[in-house]
Amino acid sequence: MNEITEANGQYVVVKALENGVSIIGMTRGRETKLLHTEKLDKGEVCLLQFTENTSAMKIRGKAEIYTAFGKVMVEST
Amino acid sequence: MNEITEANGQYVVVKALENGVSIIGMTRGRETKLLHTEKLDKGEVCLLQFTENTSAMKIRGKAEIYTAFGKVMVEST
Amino acid sequence: MNEITEANGQYVVVKALENGVSIIGMTRGRETKLLHTEKLDKGEVCLLQFTENTSAMKIRGKAEIYTAFGKVMVEST
Amino acid sequence: MNEITEANGQYVVVKALENGVSIIGMTRGRETKLLHTEKLDKGEVCLLQFTENTSAMKIRGKAEIYTAFGKVMVEST
Amino acid sequence: MNEITEANGQYVVVKALENGVSIIGMTRGRETKLLHTEKLDKGEVCLLQFTENTSAMKIRGKAEIYTAFGKVMVEST
Amino acid sequence: MNEITEANGQYVVVKALENGVSIIGMTRGRETKLLHTEKLDKGEVCLLQFTENTSAMKIRGKAEIYTAFGKVMVEST
Amino acid sequence: MNEITEANGQYVVVKALENGVSIIGMTRGRETKLLHTEKLDKGEVCLLQFTENTSAMKIRGKAEIYTAFGKVMVEST
Amino acid sequence: MNEITEANGQYVVVKALENGVSIIGMTRGRETKLLHTEKLDKGEVCLLQFTENTSAMKIRGKAEIYTAFGKVMVEST
Amino acid sequence: MNEITEANGQYVVVKALENGVSIIGMTRGRETKLLHTEKLDKGEVCLLQFTENTSAMKIRGKAEIYTAFGKVMVEST
Amino acid sequence: MNEITEANGQYVVVKALENGVSIIGMTRGRETKLLHTEKLDKGEVCLLQFTENTSAMKIRGKAEIYTAFGKVMVEST
Amino acid sequence: MNEITEANGQYVVVKALENGVSIIGMTRGRETKLLHTEKLDKGEVCLLQFTENTSAMKIRGKAEIYTAFGKVMVEST
Amino acid sequence: MNEITEANGQYVVVKALENGVSIIGMTRGRETKLLHTEKLDKGEVCLLQFTENTSAMKIRGKAEIYTAFGKVMVEST
Repeated sequence: MNEITEANGQYVVVKALENGVSIIGMTRGRETKLLHTEKLDKGEVCLLQFTENTSAMKIRGKAEIYTAFGKVMVEST
Repeated sequence: MNEITEANGQYVVVKALENGVSIIGMTRGRETKLLHTEKLDKGEVCLLQFTENTSAMKIRGKAEIYTAFGKVMVEST
Repeated sequence: MNEITEANGQYVVVKALENGVSIIGMTRGRETKLLHTEKLDKGEVCLLQFTENTSAMKIRGKAEIYTAFGKVMVEST
Repeated sequence: MNEITEANGQYVVVKALENGVSIIGMTRGRETKLLHTEKLDKGEVCLLQFTENTSAMKIRGKAEIYTAFGKVMVEST
Repeated sequence: MNEITEANGQYVVVKALENGVSIIGMTRGRETKLLHTEKLDKGEVCLLQFTENTSAMKIRGKAEIYTAFGKVMVEST
Repeated sequence: MNEITEANGQYVVVKALENGVSIIGMTRGRETKLLHTEKLDKGEVCLLQFTENTSAMKIRGKAEIYTAFGKVMVEST
Repeated sequence: MNEITEANGQYVVVKALENGVSIIGMTRGRETKLLHTEKLDKGEVCLLQFTENTSAMKIRGKAEIYTAFGKVMVEST
Repeated sequence: MNEITEANGQYVVVKALENGVSIIGMTRGRETKLLHTEKLDKGEVCLLQFTENTSAMKIRGKAEIYTAFGKVMVEST
Repeated sequence: MNEITEANGQYVVVKALENGVSIIGMTRGRETKLLHTEKLDKGEVCLLQFTENTSAMKIRGKAEIYTAFGKVMVEST
Repeated sequence: MNEITEANGQYVVVKALENGVSIIGMTRGRETKLLHTEKLDKGEVCLLQFTENTSAMKIRGKAEIYTAFGKVMVEST
Repeated sequence: MNEITEANGQYVVVKALENGVSIIGMTRGRETKLLHTEKLDKGEVCLLQFTENTSAMKIRGKAEIYTAFGKVMVEST
Repeated sequence: MNEITEANGQYVVVKALENGVSIIGMTRGRETKLLHTEKLDKGEVCLLQFTENTSAMKIRGKAEIYTAFGKVMVEST
């Protein structure tokens, strides 16, 4: 019964506006640690779910994020 | 009871605007690894569900993605 | 209790605009493989559910697809 | 507990616009096979549920289909 | 726990516009067979639920059917 | 746990517009048989639920039926 | 767990417009029999739930009934 | 688990417009009997739930009742 | 599991418009008895839930009651 | 499983408009007793949930209460 | 199964408009005691859930609170 | 069954408007302690869920927070 509900979970969409955008997944649990870093090049799009292991994501670079609250621009340098 | 709920899961729609668009499924779990790459030619359309094994998808090339947040253009080169 | 919920699952509608439109079902699971190919002739309509075995569908040729996001045109050659 | 939920399942409506319209039910499962063909004459109407055994339907001939996405015309010859 | 949920199930309404309208219930299951035929005379109205045994209904003659998709005219001869 | 949910079940309303309107309940199950006939005189109103035993109702005579699809006139003679 | 959900069940409202309005409850089950008759005098109002025992109600006389479909006038003599 | 859901049950509001308004609760079950009579004086307001024991209420006198169908005037003498 | 759902139960709001407004809780169960009387002075406000023990409330005096049906004025003397 | 649902329970908001506003929690159960009194000074705001132990709250003094029915002014002296 | 539902629980947002704003959590249970005090400086924002242990929060100082009822200003001195 | 529902939990979005924005997670439970501090640089965006361990978050610096109540500006110095 484990993975099923998760497959239907909410997702966010990240579109890179420059090369080298970082999506950094951080661990759920008592200790918050870096879990995975995904790199996107300009124009690439990534769809990401929160998972059993990931409860926070940090995005760096120039990118658009589509979330439950609308579009948010990432504008770090 | 396993696969059933999954059959009703949410899906996204990808329409390729050029040959060679890549849809890269990445694994759910503590390690995020490449799981599968699907190639689409110009004008082909693919409907994809998140699954027990896939919690993230990266799309490369020129394509339209229909998501819960509307249409997002993939514009990598 | 198995097949029941699946009977109520979501479906998509494909209408072929030329002879020889292909609907290619791909397997759910750790390996993504081709499961079934259905051929439609011009003007035929097919209603398809995602199932226990099918988590992705690729459509080739000239066709209209009715999805949760509206109508999407398939325009491959 | 088996058949009950199925009785409440979604249905589609097919109205034949000429004699000899075919509604072809295809099997759910690892193999997709032809399960049943129903013939409709001009002006007849058929209400059909997806079932435990049927996960896809192909309609041939001249007909109107009422679906979750609205009315779709079948126009094969 | 069996028949209860079924009592709350969806129904359709058929109103005959001429004598001898046929409502033909077809069996749910691996084999699709004729289960029951109900005859309506002009002006009579019938309310029908899908049931544990009936997953498809074919209507012949001149009639109005009220369905989840609105009113559909049956116009066979 | 049996009769309870049924008590909350959907109902329809029949108003007779002439004496001798018939409401004929038909049995749920593999065989569809006449279960009960209720007679209404002009101006009488009857509220009826589908039940564990009744999955279809035929109305004859002049009457108004209030259903999930609105008001339907019964106009048989 | 028996009577509780029933307490939250749907109800209808009957307002008598003359003396001697009858509300006749009929039994749920394989046999449909008269269960109880309530008499209302002019201007009295009665709130009634469908119950474990009552699946149909017939109203006679001059009255207003408030139902899920709006107000229906009882106009028998 | 008994009384809890009942505490959240629906209620109606009765406002007396004269002295001596009667609210008569009638028993749920195979026999419908008078269970309790509450008297209200002019201007008093009573909030009442259907309960495990009460499935019908009759109101006599001059009063306003607030129900799921809006305000209904009680106008008996 | 007992008291929890009750904590989320519906409530009504009573605002006294004069000194000595009475809120009289009446018992749920086969016998309807007076359970508790709360007195409010002018301008005081009381929020009250129906509970496991209280299925009816009578309000006397000059007060405003906020209910699921809107504001009702208590105007007894 | 106990305290969790309660954490998601409904709350009300009280804003004191003068010093010494009293929020008096009263016990749930067969006897209604004073459980706790909280004092607010002018401009302070308190968010309060109904709980396993509290089924009624009385507010005295000058205050605003935000409830499911909107803002109610407490105006006792 | 314990902490999970709580993670999805409702929250409120407090924004301090001056240094030294106090958010005082009070215990759920038969005795209402001070559980925790959080201090915010001007411009800081705090997101807070009700929890298994906290059923009431008092806010002192100058602050904005975003709640289910909209924005409420805290204006104590 | 543990981590799954949590994966679908609500999240907030924080966008840093200057370097060194702090997001401070505080522990759920009888004692409220600092659990984790995440630092964001100007233009970076972080998506955060409440979790089994985190029931409160304090944000310091210049930032935008997207919450269930809309956008809230963090403006501490």
